Amino acid sequence: MLLSLEHMRRRARRRIPRVAFDYLDGGAGDEAGVRENRAAFDRLRFLPRALRNVDAVDPSATLFGRRWALPFGIAPIGLGNLVWPGADAMVCRAARDAGLPYTLSTAGTTAIETIRGLAPETSWFQLYVAREQTIAEDLIARAEGCEVLFVTVDVPAPARRPRDIANGLSLPLKPSLRMAADIACHPRWTAAMLRAGQPRFANIERYAPGATNAQALAAFMASQSSGRVDWAYLDWLRGRWLGRLVVKGLLAPEDVCRARDAGADAVVVSNHGGRQLEASVASLTMLPEIRRAVGPDFPLLLDSGVRSGADVVKALVAGADFVLIGRAAMYAVAAAGEAGVRDLVRLFEAEIRSVMAQLGVTRTQDLDAGLAYSDFGAVSSSRP
Amino acid sequence: MLLSLEHMRRRARRRIPRVAFDYLDGGAGDEAGVRENRAAFDRLRFLPRALRNVDAVDPSATLFGRRWALPFGIAPIGLGNLVWPGADAMVCRAARDAGLPYTLSTAGTTAIETIRGLAPETSWFQLYVAREQTIAEDLIARAEGCEVLFVTVDVPAPARRPRDIANGLSLPLKPSLRMAADIACHPRWTAAMLRAGQPRFANIERYAPGATNAQALAAFMASQSSGRVDWAYLDWLRGRWLGRLVVKGLLAPEDVCRARDAGADAVVVSNHGGRQLEASVASLTMLPEIRRAVGPDFPLLLDSGVRSGADVVKALVAGADFVLIGRAAMYAVAAAGEAGVRDLVRLFEAEIRSVMAQLGVTRTQDLDAGLAYSDFGAVSSSRP
Amino acid sequence: MLLSLEHMRRRARRRIPRVAFDYLDGGAGDEAGVRENRAAFDRLRFLPRALRNVDAVDPSATLFGRRWALPFGIAPIGLGNLVWPGADAMVCRAARDAGLPYTLSTAGTTAIETIRGLAPETSWFQLYVAREQTIAEDLIARAEGCEVLFVTVDVPAPARRPRDIANGLSLPLKPSLRMAADIACHPRWTAAMLRAGQPRFANIERYAPGATNAQALAAFMASQSSGRVDWAYLDWLRGRWLGRLVVKGLLAPEDVCRARDAGADAVVVSNHGGRQLEASVASLTMLPEIRRAVGPDFPLLLDSGVRSGADVVKALVAGADFVLIGRAAMYAVAAAGEAGVRDLVRLFEAEIRSVMAQLGVTRTQDLDAGLAYSDFGAVSSSRP
Amino acid sequence: MLLSLEHMRRRARRRIPRVAFDYLDGGAGDEAGVRENRAAFDRLRFLPRALRNVDAVDPSATLFGRRWALPFGIAPIGLGNLVWPGADAMVCRAARDAGLPYTLSTAGTTAIETIRGLAPETSWFQLYVAREQTIAEDLIARAEGCEVLFVTVDVPAPARRPRDIANGLSLPLKPSLRMAADIACHPRWTAAMLRAGQPRFANIERYAPGATNAQALAAFMASQSSGRVDWAYLDWLRGRWLGRLVVKGLLAPEDVCRARDAGADAVVVSNHGGRQLEASVASLTMLPEIRRAVGPDFPLLLDSGVRSGADVVKALVAGADFVLIGRAAMYAVAAAGEAGVRDLVRLFEAEIRSVMAQLGVTRTQDLDAGLAYSDFGAVSSSRP
Ligand SMILES: Cc1cc2nc3c(=O)[nH]c(=O)nc-3n(C[C@H](O)[C@H](O)[C@H](O)COP(=O)(O)O)c2cc1C
Ligand SMILES: Cc1cc2nc3c(=O)[nH]c(=O)nc-3n(C[C@H](O)[C@H](O)[C@H](O)COP(=O)(O)O)c2cc1C
Ligand SMILES: Cc1cc2nc3c(=O)[nH]c(=O)nc-3n(C[C@H](O)[C@H](O)[C@H](O)COP(=O)(O)O)c2cc1C
Ligand SMILES: Cc1cc2nc3c(=O)[nH]c(=O)nc-3n(C[C@H](O)[C@H](O)[C@H](O)COP(=O)(O)O)c2cc1C
Repeated sequence: MLLSLEHMRRRARRRIPRVAFDYLDGGAGDEAGVRENRAAFDRLRFLPRALRNVDAVDPSATLFGRRWALPFGIAPIGLGNLVWPGADAMVCRAARDAGLPYTLSTAGTTAIETIRGLAPETSWFQLYVAREQTIAEDLIARAEGCEVLFVTVDVPAPARRPRDIANGLSLPLKPSLRMAADIACHPRWTAAMLRAGQPRFANIERYAPGATNAQALAAFMASQSSGRVDWAYLDWLRGRWLGRLVVKGLLAPEDVCRARDAGADAVVVSNHGGRQLEASVASLTMLPEIRRAVGPDFPLLLDSGVRSGADVVKALVAGADFVLIGRAAMYAVAAAGEAGVRDLVRLFEAEIRSVMAQLGVTRTQDLDAGLAYSDFGAVSSSRP
Repeated sequence: MLLSLEHMRRRARRRIPRVAFDYLDGGAGDEAGVRENRAAFDRLRFLPRALRNVDAVDPSATLFGRRWALPFGIAPIGLGNLVWPGADAMVCRAARDAGLPYTLSTAGTTAIETIRGLAPETSWFQLYVAREQTIAEDLIARAEGCEVLFVTVDVPAPARRPRDIANGLSLPLKPSLRMAADIACHPRWTAAMLRAGQPRFANIERYAPGATNAQALAAFMASQSSGRVDWAYLDWLRGRWLGRLVVKGLLAPEDVCRARDAGADAVVVSNHGGRQLEASVASLTMLPEIRRAVGPDFPLLLDSGVRSGADVVKALVAGADFVLIGRAAMYAVAAAGEAGVRDLVRLFEAEIRSVMAQLGVTRTQDLDAGLAYSDFGAVSSSRP
Repeated sequence: MLLSLEHMRRRARRRIPRVAFDYLDGGAGDEAGVRENRAAFDRLRFLPRALRNVDAVDPSATLFGRRWALPFGIAPIGLGNLVWPGADAMVCRAARDAGLPYTLSTAGTTAIETIRGLAPETSWFQLYVAREQTIAEDLIARAEGCEVLFVTVDVPAPARRPRDIANGLSLPLKPSLRMAADIACHPRWTAAMLRAGQPRFANIERYAPGATNAQALAAFMASQSSGRVDWAYLDWLRGRWLGRLVVKGLLAPEDVCRARDAGADAVVVSNHGGRQLEASVASLTMLPEIRRAVGPDFPLLLDSGVRSGADVVKALVAGADFVLIGRAAMYAVAAAGEAGVRDLVRLFEAEIRSVMAQLGVTRTQDLDAGLAYSDFGAVSSSRP
Repeated sequence: MLLSLEHMRRRARRRIPRVAFDYLDGGAGDEAGVRENRAAFDRLRFLPRALRNVDAVDPSATLFGRRWALPFGIAPIGLGNLVWPGADAMVCRAARDAGLPYTLSTAGTTAIETIRGLAPETSWFQLYVAREQTIAEDLIARAEGCEVLFVTVDVPAPARRPRDIANGLSLPLKPSLRMAADIACHPRWTAAMLRAGQPRFANIERYAPGATNAQALAAFMASQSSGRVDWAYLDWLRGRWLGRLVVKGLLAPEDVCRARDAGADAVVVSNHGGRQLEASVASLTMLPEIRRAVGPDFPLLLDSGVRSGADVVKALVAGADFVLIGRAAMYAVAAAGEAGVRDLVRLFEAEIRSVMAQLGVTRTQDLDAGLAYSDFGAVSSSRP
């Protein structure tokens, strides 16, 4: 019986090698940013309303002209198949069956064509802008079938993640003795990996024709990481992409307003789960101020730190229209495969329904700041 | 010699099976709400007044036209006899003898008729509104002899309590191997339970004539839990019940004002002891604002987190007229039976007298916000 | 080499029986008040001034028309000789030699006549008002030789100190098996106690002529504890006592102003070291507001939580003219007898000189609120 | 692979004797000041800006008419060669090669002439004003070749550092049995020390001609520590020194303004790394208010608590133009000699570049308060 995501996380830690778990679980620097994301959720406390008929709670939410069964979807995850072979497809299918959107990353380990085949209606694509413009052009062309394109703007440079450095994470995995022992202790993961092959950058590899092995490909990938994505680039992208365009990774209210004015259809308020800038403010902390700045109608998504259905509701109360989960879905798949993701969705749905009933609210669009008792602004000192 | 309630709690933990202790002790989710309730009391610090004659401290309090020996009573507790066989009656008698009110729950394990027989003057009844209106009607009719009827409005849906799920709590107890071992380790509880029989929903069972065993009854009980209790229902109830009507489970100031306007005679400011909505604000945190909103005269009761006589005084200082204790009384009965409850009352009385003398106050009605040094608003992050 | 008071405290814990150490070290209830007193000092941080000539720091302070070598004295301590036989006289002599005042408690274990013989210039007397007026009258008459009389007003009723209850503290000590073993493990204390005899209420015993043994005396003592000390009583006392009159144990600014208006010569802002009201605000927390209310000239003393010379300076910065130490001196005497108290005074003097030099201040009267960087108001939740 | 400074600190702890490590690592009193310095950095969280081209991040900074490769330099350290034989020169060379300034202390263990020989362009001198004016005069004359002279004003009196007292730190080292064992356990340090000789006050020894051994010299040095450095002295110094004059050790905004008006070219906002006044406010806490008071153009440096490149950026965001590191460089040299310092500089550079890119800023002068999300004022209670 699944009691909370934390149980899945612990199961995942036992079930997959450390190099994979740390890649998933870790963050930038001393990981104070990861902790601050959680602390921001813990600080927000609800002020429920009673004596409202909540016999019929409806946890669905509208976004981009569709009704989703629940007010959250799956955030883009690079290198997903390192966490568990086939993870991308498992998560994508479970999301589709639950009526939730799935976002494939440019750095994902499954080809966009494959993913769209699995879930034509519910899969979105997230673009990392490459240094060579022709690559971006081609990726955009391949994404055409998706209704929604994310462009992630909080990775202007690679981040330092000490756990990954300590573990010697690289692609292809070049096992040290320690890593070899670690892998040997996780035979199920190893067997699955042997069957499926090492994870590959399935969306990018074609642009590096000279890169005949994974190592060369990873080097190519790194060489494409770019600090050039600026407002002018966003203008170009807006002109080029006719579907919904979502800017992922903003925190400053003025940046969100400017993205809206530049024609973005939505923004993901995010600090990349604390993986890029350790000392970043939590995205939840900024959300109410952003909502005030941008007005009631502009679609805001939030991620970074969501670990329960109650957290999803907190994000909506703080001003989001929709929520994304990153690590949560990956813990589930690492703990129990596709079934784990289905369990997770059920758990979150039960929690969302229960919290909404307790708050006296039957529709997600009625979750607003009046239901929060909190001084959002406080920042905790979270270094251990 | 009883030093503090915490000692009783520890004794209770040793003396009763885990399934029973966890049912009593636990809360919703990760139990951050239970901790926040305590944190709110710890944050409130007194600003005492000196040089007032306190030779004659009087800890009694008036509520509903009666003078109670102490300014607190017993909150409604479902399934009390699971905690200790006969617990309901023990607590009821001890309260009666101490001049304190006892509230029987619809989900209590002793029939309302029995309880009223034990304590005709001091027993109140708490109504959970059932899905079938005829049941509610009949319960109200049976409660007629009570001066006070509570209607609990913070249980629109069942809550997730991970400890209960992990322990496999159900009625009748269906012991797993682990639970059987647990029970076997508590022979006194087991012997008492064998004598008394498994706890039954003594107030409800008659409405489920088809339910010939406890299991079917529990299923029936669950089916009656209702999210339909709304303001219209309160109006109906107000018209139907001629005695004092108390709404239990409000936190928002506007809800309290509306309940008053709807004819409620009092409100219990409560978050159900952190058992329903993990991320709820503490009831003590809301109390001063509620008192300001509702004016000085409307009777306010408070529960959730009271663990000492000093806490009772804090609640009065923060704006309550009267206090309810839930777990405290049950720890006492689990630790030492009826005598335990009497000890507990004596302990609380001694603490209330001592704190009032220290504050320079001789009458409970003079305990007001000027005696608190505190910024009530602060919310602590209490997830571990 | 003495590094900090904490070392002395630890030495004291090893050197004296638990019943004595806990009596000294403990506080009311769960001792959150003791911790809050410390937290208030820790929260206050200095904002030093530089580039002032501090070659000649003078740590002396004027109070009651005298210049004291350092800006602190010894708070009244009841039952001092239980902590170490002869403690009262040791502390009194060490204080005298260091040019500091010593306050004898009514509940002290050395007669006022003896103490005044030891230190005619520097000993003050603290009055606990007894239930029988004639006793108070006689005590006041005997105190006539002292320049300063304290009246303690924060003990309207006995406090609950769980450690003392658990240890079975009483006078005379009635050793349980556990206490006997404890005492047997501290032969030096025991030998000294055998030589000196059990501690006696040397100032009170004469008023209980029927009380031929310590037990009867203790009962008599308890019977005298009084909640009748009120403003009228203070008026009477002010008329009766011609020397300096100090009210000890106020925290509310209006109480301090009223005491001043009633003719008190000074007030000790104190919560009795957290020994009476567990949930009391810290005295340091209230001090700035009290100073603002009472004006710059009225003499304010502070105690409760002072553990270092830096703490003494913090109290002066926060608004005190003079500081009292309670437990600190007793830890010292318990750790190393009279020499321990001398060491302690030297340690505090060194710290005060060092902190004053760092703050850029050469005279104690120039220590003011501009040297504090702090939001005095914040209250920490300090229950563990 | 170097992951963070903390790893170097741990390596240093293993590699050098405790007496040396504690001298470096410790602080005044219970070291709450050291912890508060860290807490202040942890509280400051960034609010990054996105969609700015950061392909070309330039971490250099202008100060005193020069462009430095990175926005930080080395703070003056007394007794450096105790930490590791030859440490002063190692740090000086590594700084020079990285294009960073190095500050030699009057209490340094390498002669100013030697240091200037090593790094004629990048070495600064820090003056401790001696009691005898002629010594100060001569030191200033010898410093003439340096472009920048610091005068440290936060050491009006020696501080109590309990670890040093407990270790029996003195010059020359007079090993107790414990210290001898400690030293024996660190043969590499001991061998290096035997080769290099005990550390000497190489800048001061000539003024104590009678002091034929290290002990006499240390006594002489102590006798020179002076509380006489005041504003008049600063005026004299300003008249005497024609180069850049920097006042090190101010925290109060009015002191900084006055130093500016007195002709100082810059100020180091510093609390001496928590080594002088335990209860000092953190320098980072004061910085924004100081910047507001002193205006945008006056050069402000900051030290105390900087442990990463992100901390360097935080200081710039909070109002500094340049940063100094004290312990950080010494941990590095103790952990791995001169190569350690070079590693450290590389680590900080990588972090600075990464954080600046994440913030959307390419030039250090554009790091301003708009990039901080924080309530700088909060002070944490940091005693353990
Ligand atoms: C293992 C991992 C890989 C990620 N890869 C990407 C990525 O390729 N593109 C992207 O925009 N975000 C990526 N993210 C960030 C997520 O999309 C999301 O912002 C973040 O995980 C949210 O925080 P949470 O994990 O606390 O839910 C990744 C996150 C993780 C944990
Ligand atoms: C074991 C248990 C059973 C409870 N059952 C009921 C109930 O049947 N009806 C109700 O209104 N409240 C119920 N409550 C809530 C209490 O009435 C009360 O609000 C809560 O216990 C107060 O918090 P405290 O336990 O911290 O004092 C229950 C609480 C506990 C601990
Ligand atoms: C063992 C002990 C006995 C005390 N007895 C008395 C007393 O007889 N009269 C009194 O006014 N205060 C008494 N006090 C309180 C002290 O005078 C003083 O207010 C308190 O100790 C200050 O707090 P501190 O211990 O943290 O310095 C006593 C305190 C202690 C620790
Ligand atoms: C071992 C040590 C010796 C120091 N000696 C001096 C000194 O001689 N002169 C001086 O102005 N500051 C001295 N300082 C203070 C530093 O210059 C600087 O202000 C401080 O180290 C900054 O804090 P940080 O160590 O946290 O970076 C010393 C600091 C340390 C750690």
